Amino acid sequence: MVGGGQLARMTAAAAVGLGVTFRVLAGSESESAALVTHDVAVGTHLSLPDLSKFAGECDVITFDHEHVPTEHLRALEAAGVLVRPGPGALQYTQDKLAMRERLAALGVPVPRFAAVSSVADVTDFTSGYPVVLKAISGGYDGKGVWVVGSAAEAEQVVNAAAGHGTALMAEEFVPFRRELAAQVARSACRQGAAYPVVETVQVDGICREVIAPAPGLSPDLAVEAQELALGIASALDVVGMLAVELFETPSGILVNELAMRPHNSGHWTIDGACTSQFEQHLRAVLDLPLGSPRPSVPGAYTVMANLLGGTDPDVYDRYIHVMAADPGAKVHFYGKEVRPGRKIGHVTVVGTPTDSVESLRDRARRAASYLRWGTEDGD
Amino acid sequence: MVGGGQLARMTAAAAVGLGVTFRVLAGSESESAALVTHDVAVGTHLSLPDLSKFAGECDVITFDHEHVPTEHLRALEAAGVLVRPGPGALQYTQDKLAMRERLAALGVPVPRFAAVSSVADVTDFTSGYPVVLKAISGGYDGKGVWVVGSAAEAEQVVNAAAGHGTALMAEEFVPFRRELAAQVARSACRQGAAYPVVETVQVDGICREVIAPAPGLSPDLAVEAQELALGIASALDVVGMLAVELFETPSGILVNELAMRPHNSGHWTIDGACTSQFEQHLRAVLDLPLGSPRPSVPGAYTVMANLLGGTDPDVYDRYIHVMAADPGAKVHFYGKEVRPGRKIGHVTVVGTPTDSVESLRDRARRAASYLRWGTEDGD
Repeated sequence: MVGGGQLARMTAAAAVGLGVTFRVLAGSESESAALVTHDVAVGTHLSLPDLSKFAGECDVITFDHEHVPTEHLRALEAAGVLVRPGPGALQYTQDKLAMRERLAALGVPVPRFAAVSSVADVTDFTSGYPVVLKAISGGYDGKGVWVVGSAAEAEQVVNAAAGHGTALMAEEFVPFRRELAAQVARSACRQGAAYPVVETVQVDGICREVIAPAPGLSPDLAVEAQELALGIASALDVVGMLAVELFETPSGILVNELAMRPHNSGHWTIDGACTSQFEQHLRAVLDLPLGSPRPSVPGAYTVMANLLGGTDPDVYDRYIHVMAADPGAKVHFYGKEVRPGRKIGHVTVVGTPTDSVESLRDRARRAASYLRWGTEDGD
Repeated sequence: MVGGGQLARMTAAAAVGLGVTFRVLAGSESESAALVTHDVAVGTHLSLPDLSKFAGECDVITFDHEHVPTEHLRALEAAGVLVRPGPGALQYTQDKLAMRERLAALGVPVPRFAAVSSVADVTDFTSGYPVVLKAISGGYDGKGVWVVGSAAEAEQVVNAAAGHGTALMAEEFVPFRRELAAQVARSACRQGAAYPVVETVQVDGICREVIAPAPGLSPDLAVEAQELALGIASALDVVGMLAVELFETPSGILVNELAMRPHNSGHWTIDGACTSQFEQHLRAVLDLPLGSPRPSVPGAYTVMANLLGGTDPDVYDRYIHVMAADPGAKVHFYGKEVRPGRKIGHVTVVGTPTDSVESLRDRARRAASYLRWGTEDGD
């Protein structure tokens, strides 16, 4: 797996069970996955020599992020490396405009969009504000999405982006009811598996909570979202996990983003599903038959709360309270240095059929809040 | 963790989630746990210098087997190392006669026993055959227990043991109904947690299947077994997991063996319980509050079948069939070289409340048999 973040770390744990040899290409020995993996190669995903050397020691390579340059992926494929997912799929995660165009061509419902390079383009695109501006590729200052409330704000973003050499696209602001995610797996020999559709709760653009399955989602809409995700996986020839982030609106669902890897919206599957997304990703890229994506406990909810860094670096000191207060909460810590707002772990609470979703959300939030702030009502 | 076997391997995976740094002292780089652990020290548990050097890099040390000489454990403790469980507890797993005597003194029901050093001693002990002879410590030729059917057979064992310098004890042959195991955890600050009592199915002295909870066990007997195990953990000052192997007889339960570590009878907890025995062992020895030992799915059975080596070394080639045939079966492989009869992995099937225990046993056995023999009815 190229990339040494928490997704690779959790994939490493899944590899232990499967008994497959797992290697990571990490930026340093101190990255999250490098701390827990036996076979660590240190190098950069931006260097073709580093990638080639690493791939030479692997039967198949996959990724914990989407930042490997497409030309490097194509060069690896040309050299006979099994790259899963391949560059033909991954290119769409690196170019949001190409992704939107491809999805629109497939008939997938997406928000209205257009490439923009000036305020005039933005004004032509929208009949009003707010409107969403996005970096087509990457971003800067840790941001790639801006919701702007006026032409003046749009001008600021357009100018700043031009200064960074960042191309932009505009997208209609969707007054969604909530956000959903549909995760599917697709294996090298084209088997598919769809996880229950989940609700994701974002605050300031960061995923804070995932509720599986999405409460009150109509069965028809759930199946529509699963079929949509399976269809996208197939059309784009994704191999591995695909997360389709969705807006639920009064008139149906729209695709927001795609991720072709294990995804934050699927961390609940470690404790709450028969097959975790990490094991599933391995099965898919190794071309093994997929595992059952069903929830472990029929008829129950699972809630995952992300653990964000607070101001106190020592999260481990606070384990004792959280574990004593809730012996059923599953704490996952990524071994990352604590920085305010950084995702450093997550907490999962798997319910029974008699637990209300609110009681589970409350437990997950209390644990995450305590680990972050030292109080249970920190945010 | 001292020892690089599959118990350490599965503990390593649990440590990833908890975010604690896990090291193993393994006999070689190719041992089961060494293959998946970042921090591997190579050395032998029989060498005090190796143990001391290893312990110097750890906050606390624990074990995946009971073979560290007690005098080494005492030396480590004297040097200020946190040894959990400590030598005061572990000594009883190394000396079956002392264990029996201690349990009997505590009023714990055990089979009738006596030290024997001649056939005359055996004849004095028993009014008939079969009778059980056991090596008090260790054993030889891979065996430590002999069920002998006559005085002549007893003589053979007594003479062979004397030839190996192995002290023996005799034990009444218990005509048990079935074998059970009660697993409990006890933390450094004396918190206790009891797992559901399970049924273990042995063939030729090797555990083949575990059914959790033990089907049809009376609630009174289950509580009695759990209290017995908690009482033993407390009386012997065990820190970590304790497995108490039991005989269920028409007149009640008797203690057969003790193991002060994660144990084969608890592998089902990885997939089938809120807190796996491996995470629980870590919590206990790190003095963190214990996790809930309840089954993940209320009212459902979980079945674990051990995977023994067959004659074909390539188990991985057979994954495809097993995973395709049963997407809900959880295959765990230890990365060990395949040798006939060796425990090389296990398969777990977690049920729902509507699954019969027989259907789950059937699924687990089919998967394990196929992985071993290439057919589903191999044994």
